[in-house]
Amino acid sequence: MAIEDVRTEPRNPEAAATVISILKQQFGEKLQTGKAFRAQHAHTTTYLPPQLPDAVFFAESVEDVKAVVKVCAQHKVPIVPFGTGSSLEGQINAPEGGISVDLSRMNRVLEVNAEDLDCRVEPGITREELNTYLRDTGLFFPIDPGANASIGGMASTRASGTNAVRYGTMKDVVLAVTAVTADGEEITTAHRARKSSAGYDLTRLFVGAEGTLGIITSVTLKLSGIPEKIAGGVSSFKTLEEACNAVIMTVQMGIPVARIELLDALQVKACNAYSNLDFPEAPLLLLEFHGSEEAVALQSGQFAEIAAECGGSEFVWTANTEERNRLWKARHNAYWASRALEPELEGLSTDVCVPISRLADCVSETQKDIAAEGILAPVVGHAGDGNFHLLVLFDKDKPGEIERIEAFTTRLAERAIAMGGTSTGEHGVGQGKKRVVAGELGGALLLMRAIKQALDPDNIFNPGKIF
Amino acid sequence: MAIEDVRTEPRNPEAAATVISILKQQFGEKLQTGKAFRAQHAHTTTYLPPQLPDAVFFAESVEDVKAVVKVCAQHKVPIVPFGTGSSLEGQINAPEGGISVDLSRMNRVLEVNAEDLDCRVEPGITREELNTYLRDTGLFFPIDPGANASIGGMASTRASGTNAVRYGTMKDVVLAVTAVTADGEEITTAHRARKSSAGYDLTRLFVGAEGTLGIITSVTLKLSGIPEKIAGGVSSFKTLEEACNAVIMTVQMGIPVARIELLDALQVKACNAYSNLDFPEAPLLLLEFHGSEEAVALQSGQFAEIAAECGGSEFVWTANTEERNRLWKARHNAYWASRALEPELEGLSTDVCVPISRLADCVSETQKDIAAEGILAPVVGHAGDGNFHLLVLFDKDKPGEIERIEAFTTRLAERAIAMGGTSTGEHGVGQGKKRVVAGELGGALLLMRAIKQALDPDNIFNPGKIF
Repeated sequence: MAIEDVRTEPRNPEAAATVISILKQQFGEKLQTGKAFRAQHAHTTTYLPPQLPDAVFFAESVEDVKAVVKVCAQHKVPIVPFGTGSSLEGQINAPEGGISVDLSRMNRVLEVNAEDLDCRVEPGITREELNTYLRDTGLFFPIDPGANASIGGMASTRASGTNAVRYGTMKDVVLAVTAVTADGEEITTAHRARKSSAGYDLTRLFVGAEGTLGIITSVTLKLSGIPEKIAGGVSSFKTLEEACNAVIMTVQMGIPVARIELLDALQVKACNAYSNLDFPEAPLLLLEFHGSEEAVALQSGQFAEIAAECGGSEFVWTANTEERNRLWKARHNAYWASRALEPELEGLSTDVCVPISRLADCVSETQKDIAAEGILAPVVGHAGDGNFHLLVLFDKDKPGEIERIEAFTTRLAERAIAMGGTSTGEHGVGQGKKRVVAGELGGALLLMRAIKQALDPDNIFNPGKIF
Repeated sequence: MAIEDVRTEPRNPEAAATVISILKQQFGEKLQTGKAFRAQHAHTTTYLPPQLPDAVFFAESVEDVKAVVKVCAQHKVPIVPFGTGSSLEGQINAPEGGISVDLSRMNRVLEVNAEDLDCRVEPGITREELNTYLRDTGLFFPIDPGANASIGGMASTRASGTNAVRYGTMKDVVLAVTAVTADGEEITTAHRARKSSAGYDLTRLFVGAEGTLGIITSVTLKLSGIPEKIAGGVSSFKTLEEACNAVIMTVQMGIPVARIELLDALQVKACNAYSNLDFPEAPLLLLEFHGSEEAVALQSGQFAEIAAECGGSEFVWTANTEERNRLWKARHNAYWASRALEPELEGLSTDVCVPISRLADCVSETQKDIAAEGILAPVVGHAGDGNFHLLVLFDKDKPGEIERIEAFTTRLAERAIAMGGTSTGEHGVGQGKKRVVAGELGGALLLMRAIKQALDPDNIFNPGKIF
């Protein structure tokens, strides 16, 4: 998509110019105003048009963050926090211009407390960098949203991913954050204790706030022990219902699967072609088990029985690392496999989440809608959580196509909400889901607005997102 | 303790009288103003003086709650939500008078979704009532703070208890709440999906808000499958360090213990005497394992090795229900056992939580302080979380004694905070911990105040708590 300088409501350009001049003088090269920098910091991974900031500020310390917030607050100029730019709903777009605060240079590990299974990191470190750093400690950071996102960004969108069914989402693994708030000062939401009842849960208020309440400057994370053994396997099912029944039984029996992913027939077809696999073109479950040798054998055996009972193909599991990696690489490449179905089309990635008892219904009804619309949209899901994704392929140049796809994704969100679910399990609201959250949240949205207004009265932090 | 009508800042008595007259006319017997009712709804389980409300309103429906909130909001009269009255830090006291809203008649199970392992309940149901209701479903609600607290109250104090190490705290098991807010309308914080990224996490804002932001009118809870097998056992250690090392190794190895409780020598002595047991008067770990027959055998065996390595006595485990119940009954009676050490003294229950690597240090230093002060205060802790309790026995009639005990508990809180912990792991702030949270929370307290001010500008909900 061409980089355009689209803004919905540009804010006071004089104020932005003043802030840029102050920051330039104080910070020199840390502030960049060139089009290439600004374009890099507007959104490029969604169907939404990029909306460029007026400048990009590369923060290197908490003091830098405080300084930029103080200047922007004084002049009421927007601040858009930026990690790696992998968010999917326009979270890093700058619809009112302002300063993109790039945190990628704040990527240090501040402390690792191996005995307590926790660490504290700067927000710009990516999950892969963190896991590389941790390699020799016997510990790992389990949340895996696919992209090599920054920890600050993952906290801000309440990210999760393939192994949330076992290890939880960012809300479960973030013990505390520090953040610079609208007055330019840093607060600490909590300390390292595993639990606390000391006042409002500000930690989880910042987790998922999408940068609208402040800039996260460090994140204290729970870590997990690297499992002694990892085993994985697949089972193919004739119908979505059968596959979903196997998921429900697995969860109900309390088998602690680390991953249980659902691919629909079209997604399997795409992955077969892209990753040179030969699974039957039918609903497929991919599983992974973590634990001691005995534990993974036990769990795999229990799942094999469930798969057989639900009509699945024989569940063959392996602890062989190479085979397992090949399988999960194919899963991680599902996005590119889907794009490769029609390389000239654009892809819109969307997600919803429903109670698992409604997963088969929600996917089936969505597939009917896909067929009726005549669009290509493979389904891949974190089935253990009832969370699934569509990659909707579309021709952005076809008149009315974006509107048609938006109407389709609105129906998807409304379908999920009607089933007791949510319009987004892990991508966040950003700009893309604003049109559906009002229906989902009702009066709760008024409370959120009141909180936003109380903590950021001039709306400097990531304006135009969530609300 | 004698029931007195102590108030710190009585609010407008004319307004309270007006509200009482309106509610009496509209609701008749649901409103009670007799001293006995009011005294029952002021605090009786702490060392804090009871502060009586002006009246007690027995809500029977969401409509009742909305009506009482609307009337109180109009006249700016305080509302103190009441479940069972088992909170420990003065959460149900009425320092400014007003209406105690008793929710115990709102105790229905609204829905159980067995396939999704969730249910929705009214706030007044107690955890034991809920588990009795669920008995035939194969599911249970795992959070066990000891007292038979109401679910609404447990949510409001972010309660946890003995098996939080396995099943989490209320923040982990509450999927959503509905609450009546200051405008007298009901909001829904989220739906039944296991995860969501749709806006601010209002669910976890209400969990732990101690009734200061609204009245919770229903709670959607995650449930767990009743384990196929439960096994338990004990191991005695020569020192606290050895016992804590065994806990750390257990957590680090990822053994999914359901409970791992630490009793210090004095607590063991008290339990021996009260429950007719004969454990050595030395630090003791009590454990419980949940899972399949193979899983509990595996876990128990793994822990036995750890205990041996750390210098503990032989770990003898049993799946015999009677023996197990006897053991855990003794644990649950720890409070009464401690009180029985000196029956004429009062008991102050307090809790702190530290990273587990600091648990031995924190308990040891606290024991030194106890010895230096010459007080009786047995220690019992949810060691897997680094959370421990003291029951401080004291003579309320001795001049200066309450001040001395408060100074002691302040030092305890400050010690925990200095070790990266919190002044309260599960009891909440209420009135009792207000003097220490400012030091713990710093600037975060200002954000909490701003949120309180935004959502409850007239400070009608549980004034005088947390802040």
